[in-house]
Amino acid sequence: MTIAEQMAKVARDARMAAQVVAGLSTAVKDDLLRRMATALIERTEEILAANELDLAAGREAGLAPAMLDRLALDPSRIRAMADGLREVAELPDPVGEVTGMWRRPNGLQVGRMRIPLGVIGIVYEARPNVTADAAGLCLKSGNAVILRGGKEAVHSNLAIGRVLSNELERLGLPAAALQVIATTDRAAVLELLKREEEIDLIIPRGGEGLIRFVAEHSRIPVIKHYKGVCHVFVDAGADFAEAEKIALNAKVQRPGVCNAMETLLVHQGIAETFIPRIAAAMRTHGVELRGCATTREFAPAALPASEADWHAEYLELILAIRVVESLDEAIAHIRTYGSLHTEAIVTRDYANAQRFLREVNSSVVLVNASTRFADGNQLGLGAEIGISTTKLHSFGPMGLEDLTTRKFIVYGDGQIRN
Amino acid sequence: MTIAEQMAKVARDARMAAQVVAGLSTAVKDDLLRRMATALIERTEEILAANELDLAAGREAGLAPAMLDRLALDPSRIRAMADGLREVAELPDPVGEVTGMWRRPNGLQVGRMRIPLGVIGIVYEARPNVTADAAGLCLKSGNAVILRGGKEAVHSNLAIGRVLSNELERLGLPAAALQVIATTDRAAVLELLKREEEIDLIIPRGGEGLIRFVAEHSRIPVIKHYKGVCHVFVDAGADFAEAEKIALNAKVQRPGVCNAMETLLVHQGIAETFIPRIAAAMRTHGVELRGCATTREFAPAALPASEADWHAEYLELILAIRVVESLDEAIAHIRTYGSLHTEAIVTRDYANAQRFLREVNSSVVLVNASTRFADGNQLGLGAEIGISTTKLHSFGPMGLEDLTTRKFIVYGDGQIRN
Repeated sequence: MTIAEQMAKVARDARMAAQVVAGLSTAVKDDLLRRMATALIERTEEILAANELDLAAGREAGLAPAMLDRLALDPSRIRAMADGLREVAELPDPVGEVTGMWRRPNGLQVGRMRIPLGVIGIVYEARPNVTADAAGLCLKSGNAVILRGGKEAVHSNLAIGRVLSNELERLGLPAAALQVIATTDRAAVLELLKREEEIDLIIPRGGEGLIRFVAEHSRIPVIKHYKGVCHVFVDAGADFAEAEKIALNAKVQRPGVCNAMETLLVHQGIAETFIPRIAAAMRTHGVELRGCATTREFAPAALPASEADWHAEYLELILAIRVVESLDEAIAHIRTYGSLHTEAIVTRDYANAQRFLREVNSSVVLVNASTRFADGNQLGLGAEIGISTTKLHSFGPMGLEDLTTRKFIVYGDGQIRN
Repeated sequence: MTIAEQMAKVARDARMAAQVVAGLSTAVKDDLLRRMATALIERTEEILAANELDLAAGREAGLAPAMLDRLALDPSRIRAMADGLREVAELPDPVGEVTGMWRRPNGLQVGRMRIPLGVIGIVYEARPNVTADAAGLCLKSGNAVILRGGKEAVHSNLAIGRVLSNELERLGLPAAALQVIATTDRAAVLELLKREEEIDLIIPRGGEGLIRFVAEHSRIPVIKHYKGVCHVFVDAGADFAEAEKIALNAKVQRPGVCNAMETLLVHQGIAETFIPRIAAAMRTHGVELRGCATTREFAPAALPASEADWHAEYLELILAIRVVESLDEAIAHIRTYGSLHTEAIVTRDYANAQRFLREVNSSVVLVNASTRFADGNQLGLGAEIGISTTKLHSFGPMGLEDLTTRKFIVYGDGQIRN
C-alpha cells in the first residue's frame, strides 16, 4: 500500500470506530481508561524496551541532552501516564449533556445536546506521554483518535498505543478507535491532513514550525496555538507586595512555558517607586531586564528594549518592561503586541479590573493572579488537550468539553411548518 | 493598488474597526441597527436605482428569470431587510454573557465570558438581502464584517453597504466595520481567504460549488454547509395520520430548501399498510416516488431506486422510499447516506425516540416533527447566519451566539502558582 492508501485506511477505520465510541456509556469509557492505566503499569518493561530503541537511535543521531530527557521514560513517568488516565476517568463525561432546553410557541421543545466531534488527529513532537494523555481525553469524550508523534519517539509511541488499544479489543471495542501511525515519513501527515471526510479536528502539539506546517496544509479544522506573549499590567495604586509576588511568579516560576510573563507593563504613576523594587527582585532571581526609556531611568541596569522585545516570547529569564501612561495605553500595547494568550492586571481599582476583564480579549484574562494559572488543570477543566490562541472552535485551555460539539434535539408532538 | 493590496487594506481596516465594535454597549448596537433600518427605507430609491443597474446587466447577460427574480429588489423587499435589522436589534446580545463561574480550591473565581469572534467574512451569491441580514447579525454580535457578494448584485450590494456604513459614521463609529467589496474579480476572494491574521471566520452562502471553492482555498476557518439529505423514519406503531402529515410537510411544503426531506424510511412492520397510504398522498401532491424493492411491492407505480437515489439531494418533488428492518437499520442508513443535516423519527415508542435522539448525530434531530423546523428562526435562535453541517465551530443552524467565542476570566486576590 502507498502511504496515501495507508492513511486513507487509517482514517476510514477511525471513522467507523468513532461511531461505536460515540455511543459508549460513561461507565464503559471509565472502565476502559482504568484498564488502560493498569495495562501501562503491568507492561512497563515492554514500553521501556521500546523506549530504549528510541533513546539509542537518538544518541546515535546526536540529539541534545534536553531532547533525550524529554524522550526518556522510566517507571515513574509511566506511572504518571497511568495516573493521568485514571484522573480523566474521574472527570464528568460531557457527552449527552443538554446545555439548554426551551419551548417554542408551537409547543416544540428544543435543546442542544453535546456529542463527540468524531475523529481527532493529534500531530505532536517528541514527548511519548502525549500518546496516553491525548488518547485518554479523546476516548473519554467519545472520539476516535489518530496519533502521529515525532519520529524520535516512534517505538515508544507504538508500544504505548499497542498496550492501550489492546484494552479496547479486550472489551470487544474496535482497536481502530486509537491508532498510532507507524510510518515516520512526513508524507503521512500531509495525507492525513487531506482526509476531511473522515477526520473532524487536527490538534498539533509542538513548536511553532510544526503548528504552521499543519495549519498551512490542512483541509481539516486545526486548533492553533502559536505562542504566548503574556503581559502583567501593574496599575497605579496596586499593592506593591502583591504586584511583586504575582510578577515574580509569572516570570520565574517556570519561564520556559507559554503562560509565563514576557512583558511587564507599569503605570507611570508608580514607575518611580515600583520599578526599582521589581527590578531588584527580578535580578535576585537572575532575570535579565530590557526596558523602555522611562523604565531605564528607574532601573539603569536594564538594557534598552527594542521594538522586537515587545514581540518576543523569550521563554527564558528575560523580561521586557514598559511604562504606560494609563490603562488605555496598557490595553493598546497588549492589542498591538500580544498573542491573545494570557494577560493579568494587578490593581485595587474596581472599575479598572472590570474594564481589563472586558476589554482585553485574550483567551485568559486575570485580575490579581499569576498568568501561570492559564492551564486546563489550574482553571478547573480537569485535564487539558491543548491551548487554543485562535477563536474557533475553542479559545484558551481546552478540556473534555472542547472535544465535543452540540446538536439540536427537538421533542415534538406532530408539529409541521406553516 | 493591486487586488492583493486592496484586500490586505480591507482586512486590516476591518481588524482595527473590530476592536471598536467589540466594545460597544448593547444599547449603541441596537440603536445602530434601528438607524440602519430607517436609512434603508429612507434611501429606497437610491438602492432601487443601483439594483436597476444589476438587473439591466443581468438581462443583457441572459440571466435566467429565476435568477433575475432573486436579484430584484422592490420597496417591499427593502422593507423586509429593514424589518430584519429591527428584529435583530430586539434579540438578546450574547457579548459579555458569562456562561459559567466556578471557584477553585485556592479561591480563584473562574468563568467563561462570551466575546465576538472579531472579523467575519461572508462570501455569497446573488441575493442582495444577505448584505443587510449578515451585516446586522455580525454587528449585533460585536464583529466587523466583510461582505463579498456575487458580481450580478454588485451595484445593489454596494448601495446597501453605503447606506448601512453611513449610519456607522453618523454615530462616530468606524465605517470599516462593514465593508462591501467592490471588485468582482474572483482573485479578491482568494486574497481575502489568505488574511488569516485579520479575518477570524469565513461563512460562504450559496451553492455547493462556491462552498467547496472557499473551503479548499481558505487558510481561515470556514463554516461549511454542503447539502441536506434529510430523512424521516416512520417507526412501527407510528400514528399514521401524524406520520403522513409530517412526511408530507417535510417533502412538499418547500421542496427546494436544504431541510426538506429527501428519503423516507419505513419500518417493515408497517410497510404493507403505510406505504400505499403515503404513496397516494405524495402523488396527490405531485411527488415522483423512487422505492426499494419492498416499497415497490406496496407502491407499484414507484420507480426503482438506485444507489444514487439514497445519496441524492433532489431539492424538488421527488422522494426516495426505503423499507428498513428495524430502528438500527434506519440509523445505519442515515449514517451511510445522510449529510449530518436534519433527521426526524415518527414514533409512539419512548425508547426508540430516545435512542434516535441520542444515536443520530446530525445537526438537528427531531421526534414527531417536520424536518422543516431545522432553521434558526424556527428553533428559536431569533435569526440565522447560516447552517453548519460540519461540527466545528458550530453544528446546525447558527444564530448570534455562534458568532461569538468564550474567553476565560479569572478573579483573584493575589494567587500565585506553586
